[in-house]
Amino acid sequence: MKDFETSLRSILRADQIKTDPKERDYYGRDWTTYFEIKASAIVFPESTEEIQKLVLWARHNKIPLVPSGGRTGLSGGACATQNELVVSLERMNQILNFNKLDQTLLCQAGTITEQLQKKAHAEGLYFPIDFAARGSSHIGGNVATNAGGIKVVKYGMTRNWIVGLTVVTGRGDIIKINQGLIKNATGPNLLHHFIGSEGIYGFITEVEVKLTQIPPRTQTLLLSVSKLSNIMQCYQAFKENTELHAFEFFSDIALKKVLEHKKKSAPFDPPQPFYIVLEVESPHELAETKIMEVFELCLEQGWIQDGFLAQSSEQTKLFWSYREDISESLAPFSPYKNDISVRISKVPDFLNSVNEVLSRHYPQWTIVWFGHIGDGNLHINILRPDGVTKEDFFKQCQNVDRLLFEVVAKFEGAISAEHGVGLTKKPFLQHSKSVAEIEALKALKTWYDPDYILNPGKVFDL
Amino acid sequence: MKDFETSLRSILRADQIKTDPKERDYYGRDWTTYFEIKASAIVFPESTEEIQKLVLWARHNKIPLVPSGGRTGLSGGACATQNELVVSLERMNQILNFNKLDQTLLCQAGTITEQLQKKAHAEGLYFPIDFAARGSSHIGGNVATNAGGIKVVKYGMTRNWIVGLTVVTGRGDIIKINQGLIKNATGPNLLHHFIGSEGIYGFITEVEVKLTQIPPRTQTLLLSVSKLSNIMQCYQAFKENTELHAFEFFSDIALKKVLEHKKKSAPFDPPQPFYIVLEVESPHELAETKIMEVFELCLEQGWIQDGFLAQSSEQTKLFWSYREDISESLAPFSPYKNDISVRISKVPDFLNSVNEVLSRHYPQWTIVWFGHIGDGNLHINILRPDGVTKEDFFKQCQNVDRLLFEVVAKFEGAISAEHGVGLTKKPFLQHSKSVAEIEALKALKTWYDPDYILNPGKVFDL
Repeated sequence: MKDFETSLRSILRADQIKTDPKERDYYGRDWTTYFEIKASAIVFPESTEEIQKLVLWARHNKIPLVPSGGRTGLSGGACATQNELVVSLERMNQILNFNKLDQTLLCQAGTITEQLQKKAHAEGLYFPIDFAARGSSHIGGNVATNAGGIKVVKYGMTRNWIVGLTVVTGRGDIIKINQGLIKNATGPNLLHHFIGSEGIYGFITEVEVKLTQIPPRTQTLLLSVSKLSNIMQCYQAFKENTELHAFEFFSDIALKKVLEHKKKSAPFDPPQPFYIVLEVESPHELAETKIMEVFELCLEQGWIQDGFLAQSSEQTKLFWSYREDISESLAPFSPYKNDISVRISKVPDFLNSVNEVLSRHYPQWTIVWFGHIGDGNLHINILRPDGVTKEDFFKQCQNVDRLLFEVVAKFEGAISAEHGVGLTKKPFLQHSKSVAEIEALKALKTWYDPDYILNPGKVFDL
Repeated sequence: MKDFETSLRSILRADQIKTDPKERDYYGRDWTTYFEIKASAIVFPESTEEIQKLVLWARHNKIPLVPSGGRTGLSGGACATQNELVVSLERMNQILNFNKLDQTLLCQAGTITEQLQKKAHAEGLYFPIDFAARGSSHIGGNVATNAGGIKVVKYGMTRNWIVGLTVVTGRGDIIKINQGLIKNATGPNLLHHFIGSEGIYGFITEVEVKLTQIPPRTQTLLLSVSKLSNIMQCYQAFKENTELHAFEFFSDIALKKVLEHKKKSAPFDPPQPFYIVLEVESPHELAETKIMEVFELCLEQGWIQDGFLAQSSEQTKLFWSYREDISESLAPFSPYKNDISVRISKVPDFLNSVNEVLSRHYPQWTIVWFGHIGDGNLHINILRPDGVTKEDFFKQCQNVDRLLFEVVAKFEGAISAEHGVGLTKKPFLQHSKSVAEIEALKALKTWYDPDYILNPGKVFDL
């Protein structure tokens, strides 16, 4: 260890290196809880050039590196489990430039997502990538996982908002990619080699995002639904006739857990099997009238049973809390969780198939569904039944993974919708990508990281 | 030749093969005119599986192939200059599926862009990729060049609208990529290996696009501007306060050539050095009021000298014709043409720098500027001076390329904004991409096309 530190000190100051066991455990993990963390040390580079030095040093000494951002991931992509050196970007958190005419922000990759949102707002503009982890996730991590979130229906994924990246590849090359251009037809654009690459090809060190206008006033609706297929009809009606910003659903079981946990009363009497919370643009009276027309249509057609339009910001918060408090309310049941997606039109059949398979194998289990249904992105939670130990439940859930991903493959869906592959989904990658695709990604890995030092063992094994 | 045909006949019918010299010349070229065309034959596969057979046959026999779409390209990307076999997709032109809920269209890659636009419209939806070549370009070619066009300010490039591709790689693998998913976090998305790849990694055989709502009513404005920098202030005012769909500019020299060629009278008295034609969303009175406010502001601030709001569809067509008839009106001068881009905010300094360099070297030459200034995309045209032969002019223009691309590189721009690299810009690729980027693209080429049979010699040499 002493030799290792001495060697590191040739490129970094003492205060840029941490080896304390507590720190190694803290910086060596993400939001997953079931991996044994073994990080050799943590380093805190302060510039792209320092990261380049680190990569060249690591190549020379054959030291595996884990690029580390806000560590809010849920697939183990930022976990150090094999004595890797964790390279934290948290000191590279400066916003470097705002360009009013281009409507772009350039920042270091360790900038916290919410900082970027706030800076955009202060300049009279808007950065639309948004999710619960906004207060701790880094923009570099958002790029490395092509993060989604709650506004994808309107604004798309992180990919759509990236106009420039600076990366340090596993070869040690610094590459400045695309540099803020809107149109660039000079061969394939390398931005997309790195977006969604989970740190296996290079370190993302600087990110330039484009911004957009601050959205007009929106309105929030809470709806109750008696049948799964009706959710999709309701989605279609709003999608075709209004400017939809978000369209989330959750089951009555999910709502009941939230109401119990938060000691709130039920919004609907009688309850229904499913609920929708949706947000829609409403800049003027005309739009408001249209929203009410679509609402009435959904009622008349029987696609929804009942519904409310939020009348205040408090009520908006309340409606969203039914959806956003689900994870916290389920936590005491130490649930099995998964994040998957299918084409929007396949959602009802897919949900029915999964329910059918799981109820056949596990008739006593409680399955809780919720998610970003407007993107085909579903979160499945299964509550640990009374009398089953955590260990037994965990073992059985590995079987659930297999059953679930077989249905995902049958429906040509994604075994990870927005959480990435990391360690947790690596064994199942072939359920969503063909051998030919995986081999092409491996060929690029061999090119960008010839010494196999960048996040080795993540996404796929070589 | 007989052997070659006999061998081809093992996988295709006689009517799928053409060897007539006229046909070889016709199918062997794109809209460029200065390459000597040498195509060995043309084949017309009718399915993905037939293309796979062709690729495996070509690998075995070491026959170079040129993937061929609507051949409306301007960089020689679809030209056969080395006895390649041209593989035309024109018989693969079927729309295979429309999904109303997903708002997606699946079609074969040889579908003509305009057919796709029309089908979308018939279903009450909109495909926003649009440009002058819409009536002959193929959607597969649009993907292979990540086509732009006139609506990029509002809708972005082709990349934003692709949710699935089927490709046959140079290895002969058929890969179905992404299959219509909105969220897919299963590692880097291979869609982006093929978007903008100009046929060097694989054949694109099927394309699934997403559609959007039909845009509301738009209004068209024609403005006159005394100073280049004022164009950008005007752009910013409209961009920030209205929903901008298009923002094009052209110089007075360009307008004069159109007026002479089309025998039209000048729209402004007095003329100004520059003009803008812009299109802006105007769904209701409120938006209209806002548009007029921004217009008044631009006048008050002196950013524009004069302007008209089109009062009829005839006037809208007239305003657009000033911009769209430029290429045709310049053609008799056999002009030097180039298509480049820089960040929007760099446009004025960039234009001044190019003007300065060219007027220093060629003080007598007439430079004509126009283009999609809202995307930083400029078209430069230089008219052949009286008394200079075509041959001499062509030679001198090679020097212009060098001078121009040096300025592009200094401004961190793209030597091709929307036309691709193909053959014409291959020698200059390093002006827009670093060696490390080009080497990574070459590594992927070696993987996808180990026998170097797919569009060899395009984009870069191995």
